[in-house]
Amino acid sequence: MPNFTSKQLRAVSKNLLKAAGASEEEAELVTDHLVKANLVGVDSHGVQQLLSYTKAVKNGVIKPGAKLEIVRESPSTILINGNWGFGQVVCYKAVHLAINKAKTAGSAVVCVYNCNHIGRLGHYTQIVAENDMIGFICVNGDPIVAPFGGRKAVLSTNPLSYGIPSGGTDPIVLDIATGVVAEGKVRAALYKGQQIPPGWIIDSQGKPSTNPADLYEPPLPPAQTKLAGAVLPTGGHKGYGLGLVIAILTGALTGTECDPDITSGLTNAIYINVVKIDQFVPLDEFKNKVSKLTRTVKESPKAPGFTEILVPGEAEIIAQKNRSQNGIPIPDLTWKALVTVCKEYGLDADKLVAGQ
Amino acid sequence: MPNFTSKQLRAVSKNLLKAAGASEEEAELVTDHLVKANLVGVDSHGVQQLLSYTKAVKNGVIKPGAKLEIVRESPSTILINGNWGFGQVVCYKAVHLAINKAKTAGSAVVCVYNCNHIGRLGHYTQIVAENDMIGFICVNGDPIVAPFGGRKAVLSTNPLSYGIPSGGTDPIVLDIATGVVAEGKVRAALYKGQQIPPGWIIDSQGKPSTNPADLYEPPLPPAQTKLAGAVLPTGGHKGYGLGLVIAILTGALTGTECDPDITSGLTNAIYINVVKIDQFVPLDEFKNKVSKLTRTVKESPKAPGFTEILVPGEAEIIAQKNRSQNGIPIPDLTWKALVTVCKEYGLDADKLVAGQ
Repeated sequence: MPNFTSKQLRAVSKNLLKAAGASEEEAELVTDHLVKANLVGVDSHGVQQLLSYTKAVKNGVIKPGAKLEIVRESPSTILINGNWGFGQVVCYKAVHLAINKAKTAGSAVVCVYNCNHIGRLGHYTQIVAENDMIGFICVNGDPIVAPFGGRKAVLSTNPLSYGIPSGGTDPIVLDIATGVVAEGKVRAALYKGQQIPPGWIIDSQGKPSTNPADLYEPPLPPAQTKLAGAVLPTGGHKGYGLGLVIAILTGALTGTECDPDITSGLTNAIYINVVKIDQFVPLDEFKNKVSKLTRTVKESPKAPGFTEILVPGEAEIIAQKNRSQNGIPIPDLTWKALVTVCKEYGLDADKLVAGQ
Repeated sequence: MPNFTSKQLRAVSKNLLKAAGASEEEAELVTDHLVKANLVGVDSHGVQQLLSYTKAVKNGVIKPGAKLEIVRESPSTILINGNWGFGQVVCYKAVHLAINKAKTAGSAVVCVYNCNHIGRLGHYTQIVAENDMIGFICVNGDPIVAPFGGRKAVLSTNPLSYGIPSGGTDPIVLDIATGVVAEGKVRAALYKGQQIPPGWIIDSQGKPSTNPADLYEPPLPPAQTKLAGAVLPTGGHKGYGLGLVIAILTGALTGTECDPDITSGLTNAIYINVVKIDQFVPLDEFKNKVSKLTRTVKESPKAPGFTEILVPGEAEIIAQKNRSQNGIPIPDLTWKALVTVCKEYGLDADKLVAGQ
């Protein structure tokens, strides 16, 4: 498996995106996002996405140069039409509009529609936290999760993220899905010929299964990824309920769709909430209390088999330290595919990696 | 087990609260809350709470007549000191302040401290939904849940609720805890001499247990309810992470405490978020999309063993229909205790039930 520095992956990503039609700013923002995802260990939202994004630009799904449009605005809310720009660019700008809104109003809710795949949610809530505010974000997506008591995938994994400043150097960044597992992890097990843990999926009859093939209709992936079974919601009725709420906050509230019969490929609709902390308590006092809480939690007695209790976002910080030192491994197949796509755009990936 | 109409329970609750020192308005609001909780099947937050509330008034923990105090305010935020009034009264008023704030600002975040036990969260988010807005509320409480990887109860069940208007007659009301189960349910199993399902608790060594006694330090409840083990977080790191965030939103953001070493009896600190829907999309369009989604979900194929898929809040509506027709059963022990407390205040519970 080839191993790269983040600088090397940035060179590939930025040049490829620009060759595909992205502006300098777009290529920079999307690259920031993808390489950071790899760096913190979330490879599913890393540079492998360049394969689908370049295709999406070619198919007119992602529209480089699209401008954000403010459709409706009040003292503390904004509704934004993303006009199908790069998801990362649209969401980055929407988050900054939310931060600015919260600066004057105390809090803000910003919703976005006509937006492509925005990637890792924690990326954005971390930005809010670094601006000394509390950030919440959730998005919808393609149906993959069954409701509690159902056996058909009618909800997306509908993930959510919170970013909270802490007295320590790193903010708390919670980034979780309301489904037990991402479809990509089931597919990865299928490719490796491995079984999956019980509690992840049900088959087409709604029966629990540990065979990743049971999630799909034949012909199995990579031929197609049509679902026969479904991923289970986290915590039964709880994850299902929260997922349903997120489907509404992102779908119905943006005036787009939350009907699971309408699948939308790469698209995400977004709900963002930002709260200005010092409108409630002095920032230092808040941060001190947060660090005190996380310290108490971390120092509390461990369960058998655990040597450490992590706070949300800490696993990513550990991965980032490790990969900054030891490099970012990219699977052979992914790297080969990236080299091929680069060639299509007249780029030599190996030369870009070599800094040429 | 005696069986009552909601009118009968209202008579007992209202008169007892007034005798204990509540004003007409306070007695009315708390009674609304408690009897509604019984009616929708959530007996843990029903009239049995009168036993602890009357005691709390006597001990000076609940201060009848306390006035809400707005400590800090911005266009879309309010920080409120509840001055230790009845939790239900404080939260009811805070929710209405949030609704009014959202009417002018588009959205609102309202935080409350110095507040007693507010009861069932769904009660308040349903009020927001009935005002054609989206409501979110979460509260903290006493430590009972272990962090993921830990074995000591350092987090509360830190519950959350969403209320969302729907095109049908009833709003969606999600009301869930970030811990797998309420401590009260473990205690109920202990009293009945029953085992509990795996996945609810761990013992003092952090080992999974189905013996409810393992949650407590001897002497066992009702002698005391000091914990030896802990309730597990819902969905492992997910419920833990969300619970930690809620501990911060309610504790640190209100300027009070989120240190688990400080237990606080009946008290709750509150975080409320209200969003004005028609600031984003026309209300009818929103409601139609929500009903369409819930219809699709409800009509989707059922898993083995299920005949119906419920949307959040529907179980409560079913219970309410049933108990409105067939009465509200109150366990013998609870009723006897209520009769005794009534006597202490010179009231005859049986006469109140008989409408005298």
